[in-house]
Amino acid sequence: MADNVETIKFPEKWVRMISLTPPSLKDNTADADRLAGALKRELDTDFIHIDLSLIRMLPNFLRKCNYQVRCVIFRDRERYILAGVLDTKTESMAAGLAVDLGTSRVVIRLLDLENGLTLGESAFDNPQGAIGPDILVRIHFAGSSEGLKHLNGLIIEGLNREIQSLCETCGILPESIYLVTVAGNTAMTHLFLKIEPHWIIREPYIPATNRPGLVGAEELGIDINPFAQVMIFPNIGSYFGGDLIAGILFSGINKKQDTAILVDVGTNAEVVLGNENWLIACAGAAGPALEGGATRMGMMAGPGVIDKVTIDPVTKEFTIHTIENKTPMGICGSGLIDLAAQMFLARMIDIRGKFVPSNCRGRLKEIDGIYHLIVVSAQESATGKDLTISQVDLDSLIRSKAAMFTILETITGTVGVGLSELSTFYVAGTFGSFINPCSAISIGMLPDLPLESYKSLGNSSLGGAALVLTRPACLNDIDKIRDRITYMELNVNQDFMNRFSAAKFIPHTDTARFPSVKH
Amino acid sequence: MADNVETIKFPEKWVRMISLTPPSLKDNTADADRLAGALKRELDTDFIHIDLSLIRMLPNFLRKCNYQVRCVIFRDRERYILAGVLDTKTESMAAGLAVDLGTSRVVIRLLDLENGLTLGESAFDNPQGAIGPDILVRIHFAGSSEGLKHLNGLIIEGLNREIQSLCETCGILPESIYLVTVAGNTAMTHLFLKIEPHWIIREPYIPATNRPGLVGAEELGIDINPFAQVMIFPNIGSYFGGDLIAGILFSGINKKQDTAILVDVGTNAEVVLGNENWLIACAGAAGPALEGGATRMGMMAGPGVIDKVTIDPVTKEFTIHTIENKTPMGICGSGLIDLAAQMFLARMIDIRGKFVPSNCRGRLKEIDGIYHLIVVSAQESATGKDLTISQVDLDSLIRSKAAMFTILETITGTVGVGLSELSTFYVAGTFGSFINPCSAISIGMLPDLPLESYKSLGNSSLGGAALVLTRPACLNDIDKIRDRITYMELNVNQDFMNRFSAAKFIPHTDTARFPSVKH
Repeated sequence: MADNVETIKFPEKWVRMISLTPPSLKDNTADADRLAGALKRELDTDFIHIDLSLIRMLPNFLRKCNYQVRCVIFRDRERYILAGVLDTKTESMAAGLAVDLGTSRVVIRLLDLENGLTLGESAFDNPQGAIGPDILVRIHFAGSSEGLKHLNGLIIEGLNREIQSLCETCGILPESIYLVTVAGNTAMTHLFLKIEPHWIIREPYIPATNRPGLVGAEELGIDINPFAQVMIFPNIGSYFGGDLIAGILFSGINKKQDTAILVDVGTNAEVVLGNENWLIACAGAAGPALEGGATRMGMMAGPGVIDKVTIDPVTKEFTIHTIENKTPMGICGSGLIDLAAQMFLARMIDIRGKFVPSNCRGRLKEIDGIYHLIVVSAQESATGKDLTISQVDLDSLIRSKAAMFTILETITGTVGVGLSELSTFYVAGTFGSFINPCSAISIGMLPDLPLESYKSLGNSSLGGAALVLTRPACLNDIDKIRDRITYMELNVNQDFMNRFSAAKFIPHTDTARFPSVKH
Repeated sequence: MADNVETIKFPEKWVRMISLTPPSLKDNTADADRLAGALKRELDTDFIHIDLSLIRMLPNFLRKCNYQVRCVIFRDRERYILAGVLDTKTESMAAGLAVDLGTSRVVIRLLDLENGLTLGESAFDNPQGAIGPDILVRIHFAGSSEGLKHLNGLIIEGLNREIQSLCETCGILPESIYLVTVAGNTAMTHLFLKIEPHWIIREPYIPATNRPGLVGAEELGIDINPFAQVMIFPNIGSYFGGDLIAGILFSGINKKQDTAILVDVGTNAEVVLGNENWLIACAGAAGPALEGGATRMGMMAGPGVIDKVTIDPVTKEFTIHTIENKTPMGICGSGLIDLAAQMFLARMIDIRGKFVPSNCRGRLKEIDGIYHLIVVSAQESATGKDLTISQVDLDSLIRSKAAMFTILETITGTVGVGLSELSTFYVAGTFGSFINPCSAISIGMLPDLPLESYKSLGNSSLGGAALVLTRPACLNDIDKIRDRITYMELNVNQDFMNRFSAAKFIPHTDTARFPSVKH
């Protein structure tokens, strides 16, 4: 299949200006056939599909426009599909919507399909969180009577509300949206399409579909242009979803000669290693400590959340930075990594990640026999309570960082590539984009590469979804990524456990691997 | 396109037995992808589409059937489409429905897709007749507020009722119908698909679409299996519809070495001439006299309707045959042709079609100065009134038969084929099947060919629609017919009018053309 796909010449944009010769007695081609014929020539294809609902409006619309129109097209595997017809007046907008369909958070970006410019972006908590923050809970719930319908309704209605509101902000009508791309994990994709996710989590872990392809917006209940088409990113399997494919697409590692790595850090650490010739992927639990929620003060990035910490190694004084410089109210994953790195460099914790009370200068208190370090005192915090980090939190962070490093070691080891040979190290995820690589290296979570090797991608799933809207040829890349990728099941064997144990020290038992980290 | 299509290897039947290897940890292909993969191998294709609605039921259904299923497939241009999945128990039926979507009458035939056998057939008057028997009236009505919706509702509801009733008769559920083929004229096709037919009847006579292709039954509101697919025969233009293409397909003239002709006689005479290399078609008003409705006693074929008349040339005695031998209540087109032929042979009308009073022996009466011939007296008729035929009726018939003959002359003349060179003369249409070629030759409506050249096809549109359900490769022929056919606009010029005038005699001014007709 990949070979077939390879030969496709994609158009530059999904919107094409089409000028038709009006019909006459000598040329009485039907309206839809006339438009399809012109599009076939324009796109150099034999196959263009026009939905019945669109055919119905063509006769009057074409005449109103004197047979001069803009067509929004998209490609569905072997054929192009017409997703909308607009007049040639520039004030009528052909917009596209990219959706990062996250388990906890959904981010949408509105684009002008003609010039590729972003019109606006917004995010909302996945309303399915009301059923359960954990995707597993939702999958079980989907099996109950009306459960799937309810979960599907939550995400579709939530999306519709957000679209409506973003469109208002941007001053356009939802009817102006003709194309939507959706990148989500496999389970979220199923719930979004109202497909029973039951078998995804039962051995042998089989999704209903890995290639949902294109679906009409109307069929999905999305309140945008009724002819709009929704492209769902394909999955690789139950535990490797379209969000990751979108991320790979956005990173471009699939097109580079040099081998690079992409890490999407969240509850799961999803890792892709490869180059233009091969791609290998794996995912493993990196631990909740990295995402907020694990430590009592841990939380998602947001105003007032501590995202950077510096500790004077001599005075042990803390310099705290919060998002938008608001009064501190908690700490996010990246802040936690900074904190741990700084405490390690200030010898406030040892190489096992245990507090060194003598160096903590009165910041330590003991609750139920467990040490808690006061990061921000009650007087200075927005909550009126001490913001603390406990030994339990630290232990959890150590396990997470060890898991991450072990996964990185394992995947590179599998293909015989040294970590130091990696040309670029992409860190993705909203959370990933806040990580200070220097701190992550200091605690031994990320390998000790030159800092310039690290590139933050931000929300790479959203980026990949948006890319497809503005660069049609990317569709080709998606198929190629899908066809070329090898998914490696993480085999948690003795070898893995040995590596994991060695990585549970700061930065590592083998300090030679982290020459830049001076204790 | 035709060349692309040529290379397709169609399956023998639309139902395929598919045996899947159940998924395992080593083969975790998604359910829909697994089925699609097996179908791709089975059908030797790269492209198989499975609708989202069908994907939703696959996971549980495949497991219930142990991954052994029967698939109903169909082809939509470049790709196959899955129209249904059944278990392998033979008691679950995969049925198909062929529809002849006539302006006045709709005929449906239910088939077993697996063995091709007909399960049953039934017909109903097109409920749109309530708006107007004439398609023009309906097209105008469609332009009024809710007019199109109303007309569409009438035909869809009528069809649903008939399907329900036919299914009951045949002892199957409408849910067992997975494929539907619909052959109708261009305007009826538009109304069936709820497409505005406005521009079909306005110069330059442009349909909205000539290739509607495949549409989901659910989208059309047809109450059969929700995954069922409906294939609409393509049109050539506003005045040459899918019913004719189905007729050509059924006649097979497109596959014969020798040139043959196909005539579908109704309000319009639709004529197709050709062979395996070329096809030329034209249509012209043959006049309503041939279809019933024109003469006061004229009507559609049905019980009690006079379909055959013999007149003793000496005694001038009438022998009348009615359908089902019921008491006569009217006369249908074929009866009218018989009557005219017999009257001509009995010298009761002259070569201009005018009554010869001296030979009509008291059967003539004059009403408002116009001669009426009593065919059946009031005493013997089912209506209690004389069944008569007037000079006006005869004049109308003469014009109709002259038009038909002129059209036949014109189309054959255009390609330089003599009428006598035709290998076979197919007469189609429910009405056509009742025509006695001998009588039609006697009045000079059909050319004087050996009687064995004439073949009655019956309802060729229905036949063609049914053929597609049982012989998949026919889809190929449809595209070839469509791509190869030349539609000839009847140019009613002086030459045509001269021929028409010459044909307004019985059998013709040039009696040498009708050697078998002895006056």
